[in-house]
Amino acid sequence: MTTTTGTGQPVRTIAFVAYPGFTMLDMGGPLQVCSALADTVPGFRTVVLGERIEPMGTDTPLSVVPSHTFDEVPDPDVLVVPGGLVPTIAAMADETLLARLRRAAAGASVVASVCTGSLLLAAAGLLEGRKAATHWLFRDMLVPFGATPVADRWVEDGRYVTAAGVSAGIDMALHLVGRLAGEDTARQVQLLIEYDPKPPFGAIDWAAADAARYEPFVKQALTEALAGHPELFARLGG
Amino acid sequence: MTTTTGTGQPVRTIAFVAYPGFTMLDMGGPLQVCSALADTVPGFRTVVLGERIEPMGTDTPLSVVPSHTFDEVPDPDVLVVPGGLVPTIAAMADETLLARLRRAAAGASVVASVCTGSLLLAAAGLLEGRKAATHWLFRDMLVPFGATPVADRWVEDGRYVTAAGVSAGIDMALHLVGRLAGEDTARQVQLLIEYDPKPPFGAIDWAAADAARYEPFVKQALTEALAGHPELFARLGG
Repeated sequence: MTTTTGTGQPVRTIAFVAYPGFTMLDMGGPLQVCSALADTVPGFRTVVLGERIEPMGTDTPLSVVPSHTFDEVPDPDVLVVPGGLVPTIAAMADETLLARLRRAAAGASVVASVCTGSLLLAAAGLLEGRKAATHWLFRDMLVPFGATPVADRWVEDGRYVTAAGVSAGIDMALHLVGRLAGEDTARQVQLLIEYDPKPPFGAIDWAAADAARYEPFVKQALTEALAGHPELFARLGG
Repeated sequence: MTTTTGTGQPVRTIAFVAYPGFTMLDMGGPLQVCSALADTVPGFRTVVLGERIEPMGTDTPLSVVPSHTFDEVPDPDVLVVPGGLVPTIAAMADETLLARLRRAAAGASVVASVCTGSLLLAAAGLLEGRKAATHWLFRDMLVPFGATPVADRWVEDGRYVTAAGVSAGIDMALHLVGRLAGEDTARQVQLLIEYDPKPPFGAIDWAAADAARYEPFVKQALTEALAGHPELFARLGG
């Protein structure tokens, strides 16, 4: 972006992608973190991009309205793509959205995703040969697109930074703030959003996390999302 | 609510309060957690209440649209109030909103808040004699309303469950899910939102958190928010 501050300093634009049905917290976490950066340090701004500036649903009862269209912010410095369930898998076959992602990513210094947002980046052809994270139940679906799934909270491979499921976007975004503005600023943002997590039932016990239990749920989501796209359905192991 | 499921089972409504300028993640975290509960276990639903079903701004570039008006859901089973900065402090003097909170809280089995949302509950007269959490920079402001600030991630005092700043709403909401539907369900929700936090720069070092550094920032927010309300300004230590 050629936007500048009052002092003529260029403003780096951190753009979040909104599309119908995305998972609210996939955007809400990193958007809050990056907006705290923008509120704290001159030279950054956050925007939410959508096809139109109109209300769209999320996977919660909250509807949201983007702040800008894709056309209005063609060259963000940082792009962040949230994930979701059925609507996100369906969006893997949405050539209009994938073209938007390719276009916005082209000049970005950082291309990031949260949860199954990495499946959208993968479907757009952007993660070939890259390590990538995604929601733990969907890791296998990165493979057909030439990406290597990683079971980390987030993984950085060049300009690509992809996070695990939903809440992992907060950790990833704090890393991003550190990368963009230094660790001191990241710690300050962490203080402002009081991110000192204490899950009331402790950390996830991954040894007890039974992916097989959720297999019908994943299969059902694939079937529902890709009814009109048998090739992609088969490619994803459906 | 008298809403029932197809099998005639009553539905418990978890209602989030939206008002202009609230902090996105204060709602986004617990709304995602509670919506995952509603998606997983029959008998629960989440709604977002507002004065009107119209877009309103948050403290990020994302605008949001409530799913229902206050009038449409007069008796939620659980009420969750997000906080914010200047708009939330200003809302402490908004008698219309405070009356909405009192009315919605009247029959609720749980009244919850995130961050400075507890200041709204306090201003509505609901936290007198209660222990309460809030954003770490705003704890003192609970005192004039007869609440006892607690420096915990969240605190439960009878039917009141109040969380610390912003991201603490996720921890609080998982506790709520445990209270409403049992620990197993809470753990399942935790898995679905992959809440296994790993702050990239570690936990907050509270010994190094310098509240004095942020005093001018808090003072400025109070001044801006309560310009037309000198009595409340003075009561809050402005």
